[in-house]
Amino acid sequence: MTVHAQPVLAAMPTIDDIRAAARRIEGLARRTPLLESPALNKKFGARLLFKPEVLQRTGSFKFRGAYNKIASLTEEERARGVVAFSSGNHAQGVAAAAQLFGARAVIVMPTDAPAIKADNVRAMGAEIVPYDRYRDDREIVARPYVERGMALVKPFDDPLIVAGQGTVGLEIAEDAAAMGVRVDAVVTPCGGGGLMAGIATAIKALSPETGIWGAEPNNFDDTRRSLAAGIRVKADPAGTSICDALMSPMPGELTFAINQRLAAGVVAVPEAAVAAAMRDAAAHLKLVVEPGGAAGFAALSSGEIELGGRTIAVVLSGGNVDLDLFARLTTST
Amino acid sequence: MTVHAQPVLAAMPTIDDIRAAARRIEGLARRTPLLESPALNKKFGARLLFKPEVLQRTGSFKFRGAYNKIASLTEEERARGVVAFSSGNHAQGVAAAAQLFGARAVIVMPTDAPAIKADNVRAMGAEIVPYDRYRDDREIVARPYVERGMALVKPFDDPLIVAGQGTVGLEIAEDAAAMGVRVDAVVTPCGGGGLMAGIATAIKALSPETGIWGAEPNNFDDTRRSLAAGIRVKADPAGTSICDALMSPMPGELTFAINQRLAAGVVAVPEAAVAAAMRDAAAHLKLVVEPGGAAGFAALSSGEIELGGRTIAVVLSGGNVDLDLFARLTTST
Repeated sequence: MTVHAQPVLAAMPTIDDIRAAARRIEGLARRTPLLESPALNKKFGARLLFKPEVLQRTGSFKFRGAYNKIASLTEEERARGVVAFSSGNHAQGVAAAAQLFGARAVIVMPTDAPAIKADNVRAMGAEIVPYDRYRDDREIVARPYVERGMALVKPFDDPLIVAGQGTVGLEIAEDAAAMGVRVDAVVTPCGGGGLMAGIATAIKALSPETGIWGAEPNNFDDTRRSLAAGIRVKADPAGTSICDALMSPMPGELTFAINQRLAAGVVAVPEAAVAAAMRDAAAHLKLVVEPGGAAGFAALSSGEIELGGRTIAVVLSGGNVDLDLFARLTTST
Repeated sequence: MTVHAQPVLAAMPTIDDIRAAARRIEGLARRTPLLESPALNKKFGARLLFKPEVLQRTGSFKFRGAYNKIASLTEEERARGVVAFSSGNHAQGVAAAAQLFGARAVIVMPTDAPAIKADNVRAMGAEIVPYDRYRDDREIVARPYVERGMALVKPFDDPLIVAGQGTVGLEIAEDAAAMGVRVDAVVTPCGGGGLMAGIATAIKALSPETGIWGAEPNNFDDTRRSLAAGIRVKADPAGTSICDALMSPMPGELTFAINQRLAAGVVAVPEAAVAAAMRDAAAHLKLVVEPGGAAGFAALSSGEIELGGRTIAVVLSGGNVDLDLFARLTTST
């Protein structure tokens, strides 16, 4: 227990907050379907229900949280604009949501973010402020904009962001129930932990027996190690990964507190497993999944998550990958 | 007018036949959504609603027609098994439908069909009989099986197949109506013409003002040339194409009669436009579309279909492409 346990507890979103987020994003976010492949079921010996957030507006789940946050600002706040720091997917979510409200958006983005993500952010009218991922502190780069009165839309450590991402879990629970299916486990990629915390909150409220699993890349397994340590620890700052979407340096205070209570575990996945998952998703689901978006699927090959005959929901969280990298990872040559 | 005009007229499926097919495939075929990308709308200056049949069971629309046909056989007929000839997508549709009925399926398949398609057919328990696309007549290869009493499931020239594929058009019309959108044109890939004829039948019954456009690869523009000639003509038998799904040698008698009555036109698309459409679908829709499946989208770049400010439904008919070829076509190097 840490000294800030009580304020964090009070900030934890509830299923009601997630339902409120679902009402806000309705008709603007896409309600992604659950996809299934007999060939993949056979290969993994489990019934796999894929939640393809690659089909979401802006190509990842991030629009859900960003819209929920910006919709919850006052009109005065929105008139001053919003600022965000992001490796790309959150940036696109914020840019799209801000554009819908006609609000100015400034995005602090690492210089090595995939070109497709930067291009998409610019196409939605947002301004990009570049920073060096290994040298600069993105919070410091964003600070002048916040001091100028712009609202900071954090990538994960905010109850409204977590509640927005939680609509992914709410939809999984609702759609599985409509199919008459009991989901034994949900596996999701984990960066700062916002998506995982939101999904865990929704799923545990509606289906307490379902296990919640996260997946991180080998070099960015900060949530896995934080859960083991019982306290938030940082990932190796020199680490690199093909999973650019999951390279957050440390779990959020709020997201860690939620995941610590609700998660069954977090799996660290090697890059070869990520590439194999991307190939399987392309071959059998016909989906372009980015490396970070495929980490949850990759975790099924780890042996750490029980599969045999069970029903597993797998979140494919994003598809914003440069096609040259996609080609390199999905071909044998 | 040809001598067989009256029998062909009588065989033409109606919207009621398509509705009956929709009831048969319900819960077995996936009701694919309409997807939209603000970036693609901007690029093409039109509102584009994509019908992603790449997400359909077996990775293409073909399951719809195959299931409708096999479901319409008597139990005795099904017990003798089914035979089909196909470059791959129809084969997979037939194999999947036969498997659902526990019926034996024999597929006569060209030796140069993509490996992924042959693998998938085998995985669904069907037997493959290979033939040389340039030397053998596939109908002759299939004949012994038909003479043994197996039911031939034709790839397109059958009212039940056309009605099954027509459910694609029915869903487009229903979903557009639910969105309150008037569709000005539907653009679909065209091989033997079954998908196009089915879509045309459904759309023209429900929305007579909507234009129906087909798209064929440059070297296999038999339907385009047949429409121009007013009589069915063959494609150049020596032609090759990356669009393996669209390499049927000649329009069907039934499908041509329908398309002749209902189509606005057919566009012949060059391979470079097909590759560009595959790239756009991967980058903006996050979908793996096979060359033939992208032909309709590619036709938007031809200048032959009016776009400016209009709403166009674009059928992405299949996604069964070897990932090495997909990589080659979607990368710049």
